[in-house]
Amino acid sequence: MIIVMRRGVADEEIAGIEERIRQEGLLPHTSRGVETVVIGVIGQRPEGMLERMERMPGVDQVTPISKPYKLASKDFCAGPTTIQLGDAVLGSDDVVVMAGPCTVESREQVVETARGVRAHGAHVLRGGAYKPRSSPYSFQGLGPEGLRLLREAKEISGLPIITEVMEPGTVELVCEYADVLQIGARNCQNYPLLREIGRVHKPVMLKRGPGCTVEEWILSAEHIMSHGNMQVMLCERGIKTFETATRNTLDLSAVPLVKRITHLPVIVDPSHSTGKWYLVKSMCQAAVAAGADGVLIEVHPTPDTALCDGGQSLTVENFAACVEGIRRVAEAVGRRVPSRTPSRELVFT
Amino acid sequence: MIIVMRRGVADEEIAGIEERIRQEGLLPHTSRGVETVVIGVIGQRPEGMLERMERMPGVDQVTPISKPYKLASKDFCAGPTTIQLGDAVLGSDDVVVMAGPCTVESREQVVETARGVRAHGAHVLRGGAYKPRSSPYSFQGLGPEGLRLLREAKEISGLPIITEVMEPGTVELVCEYADVLQIGARNCQNYPLLREIGRVHKPVMLKRGPGCTVEEWILSAEHIMSHGNMQVMLCERGIKTFETATRNTLDLSAVPLVKRITHLPVIVDPSHSTGKWYLVKSMCQAAVAAGADGVLIEVHPTPDTALCDGGQSLTVENFAACVEGIRRVAEAVGRRVPSRTPSRELVFT
Amino acid sequence: MIIVMRRGVADEEIAGIEERIRQEGLLPHTSRGVETVVIGVIGQRPEGMLERMERMPGVDQVTPISKPYKLASKDFCAGPTTIQLGDAVLGSDDVVVMAGPCTVESREQVVETARGVRAHGAHVLRGGAYKPRSSPYSFQGLGPEGLRLLREAKEISGLPIITEVMEPGTVELVCEYADVLQIGARNCQNYPLLREIGRVHKPVMLKRGPGCTVEEWILSAEHIMSHGNMQVMLCERGIKTFETATRNTLDLSAVPLVKRITHLPVIVDPSHSTGKWYLVKSMCQAAVAAGADGVLIEVHPTPDTALCDGGQSLTVENFAACVEGIRRVAEAVGRRVPSRTPSRELVFT
Amino acid sequence: MIIVMRRGVADEEIAGIEERIRQEGLLPHTSRGVETVVIGVIGQRPEGMLERMERMPGVDQVTPISKPYKLASKDFCAGPTTIQLGDAVLGSDDVVVMAGPCTVESREQVVETARGVRAHGAHVLRGGAYKPRSSPYSFQGLGPEGLRLLREAKEISGLPIITEVMEPGTVELVCEYADVLQIGARNCQNYPLLREIGRVHKPVMLKRGPGCTVEEWILSAEHIMSHGNMQVMLCERGIKTFETATRNTLDLSAVPLVKRITHLPVIVDPSHSTGKWYLVKSMCQAAVAAGADGVLIEVHPTPDTALCDGGQSLTVENFAACVEGIRRVAEAVGRRVPSRTPSRELVFT
Repeated sequence: MIIVMRRGVADEEIAGIEERIRQEGLLPHTSRGVETVVIGVIGQRPEGMLERMERMPGVDQVTPISKPYKLASKDFCAGPTTIQLGDAVLGSDDVVVMAGPCTVESREQVVETARGVRAHGAHVLRGGAYKPRSSPYSFQGLGPEGLRLLREAKEISGLPIITEVMEPGTVELVCEYADVLQIGARNCQNYPLLREIGRVHKPVMLKRGPGCTVEEWILSAEHIMSHGNMQVMLCERGIKTFETATRNTLDLSAVPLVKRITHLPVIVDPSHSTGKWYLVKSMCQAAVAAGADGVLIEVHPTPDTALCDGGQSLTVENFAACVEGIRRVAEAVGRRVPSRTPSRELVFT
Repeated sequence: MIIVMRRGVADEEIAGIEERIRQEGLLPHTSRGVETVVIGVIGQRPEGMLERMERMPGVDQVTPISKPYKLASKDFCAGPTTIQLGDAVLGSDDVVVMAGPCTVESREQVVETARGVRAHGAHVLRGGAYKPRSSPYSFQGLGPEGLRLLREAKEISGLPIITEVMEPGTVELVCEYADVLQIGARNCQNYPLLREIGRVHKPVMLKRGPGCTVEEWILSAEHIMSHGNMQVMLCERGIKTFETATRNTLDLSAVPLVKRITHLPVIVDPSHSTGKWYLVKSMCQAAVAAGADGVLIEVHPTPDTALCDGGQSLTVENFAACVEGIRRVAEAVGRRVPSRTPSRELVFT
Repeated sequence: MIIVMRRGVADEEIAGIEERIRQEGLLPHTSRGVETVVIGVIGQRPEGMLERMERMPGVDQVTPISKPYKLASKDFCAGPTTIQLGDAVLGSDDVVVMAGPCTVESREQVVETARGVRAHGAHVLRGGAYKPRSSPYSFQGLGPEGLRLLREAKEISGLPIITEVMEPGTVELVCEYADVLQIGARNCQNYPLLREIGRVHKPVMLKRGPGCTVEEWILSAEHIMSHGNMQVMLCERGIKTFETATRNTLDLSAVPLVKRITHLPVIVDPSHSTGKWYLVKSMCQAAVAAGADGVLIEVHPTPDTALCDGGQSLTVENFAACVEGIRRVAEAVGRRVPSRTPSRELVFT
Repeated sequence: MIIVMRRGVADEEIAGIEERIRQEGLLPHTSRGVETVVIGVIGQRPEGMLERMERMPGVDQVTPISKPYKLASKDFCAGPTTIQLGDAVLGSDDVVVMAGPCTVESREQVVETARGVRAHGAHVLRGGAYKPRSSPYSFQGLGPEGLRLLREAKEISGLPIITEVMEPGTVELVCEYADVLQIGARNCQNYPLLREIGRVHKPVMLKRGPGCTVEEWILSAEHIMSHGNMQVMLCERGIKTFETATRNTLDLSAVPLVKRITHLPVIVDPSHSTGKWYLVKSMCQAAVAAGADGVLIEVHPTPDTALCDGGQSLTVENFAACVEGIRRVAEAVGRRVPSRTPSRELVFT
């Protein structure tokens, strides 16, 4: 059973609920977020308890858990969840294009890419300042300096920024710079990190772990939401399978499936999942045709010299063709790739 | 090294090549198909042998094998391979729709389905007379009676027929009825069956084995082609992964990948791979957006009473909506779902 | 529901049962094997039908199917199934060692290997005359000539022979030579082949398909058994996973699991699953410690020159050390590697 | 290229090396651990640089990286790495038994279990105070209170403690209580956590991520080691595959493989991987036969009432039988399960 408290609930009301749960012989598990307080109830529910709780002061909603997730489910909120991202609204008919380099390498590289992707239709600039790398000897990102370069690119291009946060201790710092936080695939089940991100007031994109089932992935979103942050979007980026012809296997069937059972927007990342730039355009089109609300595309001004993942990066020219393909498929399925508004244009110079 | 002989090559010429290969210290492996004779050369090739073989009488082409497949590769034939299927040409800009019941159950069921899918845009009627079933106690198909019912449905609807063949001993019988032979996923590496089908003059659709890599799948196509039958189309139908939310994981990235390295048309089967009827339309659209040349859709007049796989079958009404979605996406990517020609109409009454 | 008929049941009795099933509104599916006739009943069982069928003439046993397999299950036969293989009894406390080359290449090679493995403790000689190969240009085995060489090696060494059969049309021929038939991993769900092998009176070893779950694998054994051949042993040989450090992932947990739910003996093949000769001894030991009834080991007199799979073959010397390790672990878990009987010795010269 | 500095190297020497690397046009990546300073060199190495670096003051060893890992490799240290754990030495001929409950629930539960496993041969007590749980509504562990209960159980039983640490911020706290730190499977690629643990002087057991290849797993060990902590042991606990009969698929072939390429001890966890208590004994035996240096077994005084993972827990009685099986197999492969020393006995009362 999950008890969602009313906005602006008083501390005494929360304490009253917790007390009552203990009287029923169960254990309360309270998560206080910026927007919402949620109390999970652990243990077997006695007869009639659900109804008793609904009458308590401060309570907004009480729901029995049939599925292991609740706040992410359509039963809780018919949805869809919408998140404003620059000129586009994720979760509406808009198809949102996020693009940029895997890793921020230099001012020139990130600004050049930001301008390029902005000119050809991107709504959000992506770029990694902190990079999880399998090898300790690989380049681990520029860190705070990378965040500063992203902010500069944002100011020049007018594009909001999405960037990865890797550990609880840097959530606050990254929040100062990012418009959207990214949780990387390897951290999909890093619960202390999910908890911290659940406590901030900032949209978050949760990448699916390459070893995570759809249910585990949604449960990780539930972790974030149970701490109060409801602005969660999911990102399918491929799972580990026996196939080696692509880096991972992009599970596009998960897109309509997740959209059927949750109210959360779904993004698809064809760059990391395939690992091959020449498959990106086709898989972006396929993602949109499958119902994705957005795509995440790796773009680099000179992929051959990229410090990481060059082989999966598009040039700006290829990105332009890719967006054109996305636009046509989006229209075929009754959606649109929103254009930039004139006022934003001014920022671009 | 693969030696492809000229059409109409004489037996003495073949014998001469074989003899010469043995003189070079290697082993010939000759496959005689209806259209082509191919001689594989087993062993380490001596210096200059390729050039010596090219000069021999009866030889059309000699190619060293760098990839493990050769005849399926774009290096051998820039392609694309085209196959006429009723009103549509697979391998052209046409997107071909194959639809029908998983299993032929009765005259009424197959004829009703044939009429329904024909009316809403299908080009080929699918239906199983021989069914590979995991359990020996499940319905194994009507066998020859099923083939007769398919022929009847073909005569009434004017749609060509695709149906599965499961063993070398029934290839000849199935060929009397089928316009396209289907090799099921479980038989993707049944080499004696591939050999027999390589010897007939009939298009064949090779389903990917749920445990097969893209390379193993193409090699199975190569088995068929090396015995002379070049009319091969591939069908992606999902692979085995840890994800259990869908029956298998549809590997759509394989579509643009296979089309990049081979000249063979690629079909996608969203019904079997997802196992859920409500994902079929989205995944058909995604398949076409990814570059598929056709889709294979399970349709049943009354899915609830289907003897097998009802949960993944579309009703005729849902099929109509699905084709409409496919049509719009096809046009968005510069292709088309061909309409039936008027002359064919006459057959329909 | 499965109806197992009494041995020596009359045709009229079978027809009577089939008629009765149809009267109940269901469909009979009769499989006639050499030893047993089994009638599967397809459809929803009416109340009381099980009891009615048990009273019919000719019926031995009637069982509702809760698990999808029945004859392979411990509910049907507490087991274990035992199969005599030369000096060893599979399914007893004996741990059976099967060894030999992947492929029969020449008289010298197979006879030398047979002598070598015999001298160091093997109970069964393995060797492939028909080889399923991913590439059509790889060596496909010597065929009938390979079978003759195996017979010769058997006569010289006194070891019974296990060899693969790949298609229904050659089952009869292979039965003339083989003491145990092998169904290869790629044919684990080749139902026409399973059916033919179900009709012969010869032990069979069914390799697990690399894409098959434990349940699918047992169901394939059930296919064979439902046609009358009860002498089935299972062989775990690795499954397809994302791990590439070994060729496949040997699923040793399947060994105690299968032995818990079925009465069939289980063999483990560490050579094919790992693809690395230097892991074979460790994994043989692990297999026996996990409860395997036997192991299948690839041995070649000169692995470096083997026509296939040399990298996974043991030399005769390494094989000797491997058997010694197996022997010690077998004793630690209360089993034994039986020695050859003196009378057999005479054959060896 | 990796430069390992001499113990007690001066800061000026490190700065000198870094400066020189930059002069060569490359990027230094310095990790300062408690015991060792390691400098990774990022970029393409100019001709002769390796030799130039070897001559620099403070340098102990310079190695080109051929494999992506270096410190974990046998090329760097022939090994084996040994770690004293109570009466046993991990990495020697000893087979180390770690046992205890998945989660610390109460003083009574953990003390009773500690006494039980101690009496029957365990060398290390395991127990979770912080639990990573897929669902935010599941019991997340007792936290600091759990750590205090573990210390109490340690004082009573004399067994050293292994317990999980989930985030960089609690490493220091957990180190006060734990003898061995555990990194859970979901955190196998949580690099900020690996970095923190690399900076402490405490043995660490790194569980393999269920979606990690052997190479990725060893690279995660390398992350820890590159920050200075060399006391790393690896724990195989199953990978995600299509098989659903067991929770995960225990990859025992990884045991001899990892021991061949690294000098690190390898532990096997059959409880979590199989998820079934009745497979634990067989798989413990198999692990030891495959060469494992230890096993990690879940034991609970009353598995039926366990707050988590009861279905995979052994009772104390079953644990006793399991250790007996391990002991016999250990001896068969030339190893031993060390008994407790008399002096330790005194602690037990």
